[in-house]
Amino acid sequence: MSDPLRDLRVALLAFAAERDWDQFHSPRNLATALAVEAAELLEPFQWLTEEQSRALPAETRAAVEEELADVLLYLIRLADKLDVDLAAAARAKILKNAEKYPVDKSRGSSRKYDAL
Amino acid sequence: MSDPLRDLRVALLAFAAERDWDQFHSPRNLATALAVEAAELLEPFQWLTEEQSRALPAETRAAVEEELADVLLYLIRLADKLDVDLAAAARAKILKNAEKYPVDKSRGSSRKYDAL
Amino acid sequence: MSDPLRDLRVALLAFAAERDWDQFHSPRNLATALAVEAAELLEPFQWLTEEQSRALPAETRAAVEEELADVLLYLIRLADKLDVDLAAAARAKILKNAEKYPVDKSRGSSRKYDAL
Amino acid sequence: MSDPLRDLRVALLAFAAERDWDQFHSPRNLATALAVEAAELLEPFQWLTEEQSRALPAETRAAVEEELADVLLYLIRLADKLDVDLAAAARAKILKNAEKYPVDKSRGSSRKYDAL
Repeated sequence: MSDPLRDLRVALLAFAAERDWDQFHSPRNLATALAVEAAELLEPFQWLTEEQSRALPAETRAAVEEELADVLLYLIRLADKLDVDLAAAARAKILKNAEKYPVDKSRGSSRKYDAL
Repeated sequence: MSDPLRDLRVALLAFAAERDWDQFHSPRNLATALAVEAAELLEPFQWLTEEQSRALPAETRAAVEEELADVLLYLIRLADKLDVDLAAAARAKILKNAEKYPVDKSRGSSRKYDAL
Repeated sequence: MSDPLRDLRVALLAFAAERDWDQFHSPRNLATALAVEAAELLEPFQWLTEEQSRALPAETRAAVEEELADVLLYLIRLADKLDVDLAAAARAKILKNAEKYPVDKSRGSSRKYDAL
Repeated sequence: MSDPLRDLRVALLAFAAERDWDQFHSPRNLATALAVEAAELLEPFQWLTEEQSRALPAETRAAVEEELADVLLYLIRLADKLDVDLAAAARAKILKNAEKYPVDKSRGSSRKYDAL
């Protein structure tokens, strides 16, 4: 079985190299593009209730799917440029969050919680 | 070899279930949290030149690594809630971008390009 | 009576000049800082229901007030750097929106509406 | 002389009332729309150097002007819904920043500075 994060990283590396786009892919530029894409992902939700957001029309869902992909691609590219192992960083963050939000003190409360 | 996107998705599912946080994880809320994290990731870059962003101080780099993790975790959680296969969506987007930006017409130019 | 947008613009001009910060205030940097502040303004709302957002605790409201100020200050500074008359641009946009969303066709519907 | 922030606030109030859009204008929704607009304002800058951002092509500048207006309109509307005096909050923030960044210690340095 293959690791999609690694495969996508390699594919993006080749994509940029073929187009000589590496020059534009400074971490700052990539972080900016990522924030712009994250806002495009948020855009279709801005006037929806939470309930409506759980049952998106097919057309909206397709657009959202593409924005999710854009965010992931910039994220992988930025992590690659910064030499960050994205999967390892995410695993470490889950452990940190587990300590920060112990099950017995966090159950059912969103107060002051700012993480998954 | 394991698939980190799948493993992280399962870990986040358990994390939310144990804390009864599923009620807060509407797609709208998760898309909002993702955009907030993407801006936190952008924050340390806002006054840096592109050149400076390529050589971050160790402390900044550690903070950025954690923000990268936050973005990935919300992204995986949101995709899960919307039943989107993140890796497949990303692969499809790379193919689409390859058609949109043919190598011979895109070489070395960032004009009107808005993708990887 | 004085015009607060003009007064604030002049105050920010002096503030930057005294600190020799003009060199950092490229439109790109200011647009980035503005987006970061807008996300900080969104942050306290991310887990609130719409109803809860209408009745913020005093502490949250004070924090939000300061973020509102930050966004306005960067907005004024960016408009100044780009030589844009912010009040005139806003008036023009309201007229444009009034044409785009005629009263009789827009009443009570948020469908496809993306403006005030 | 008139106060544009007050005039725009009143105009937006009438605009929403005529269309019965007040129901959609919860602080949370408005803060979300504001963040989305701020990212749209950032979008044209994402691949530009700072130098290029100081000399925008006419077409880009016109688009940026409209995005500046969008941000201001949502900002005014959100402040109105929260009963915040935007100009007073901005003046207070400038005073706070002046204390935080004394002229003699801040001259020419962007280190750790996160404000105007």
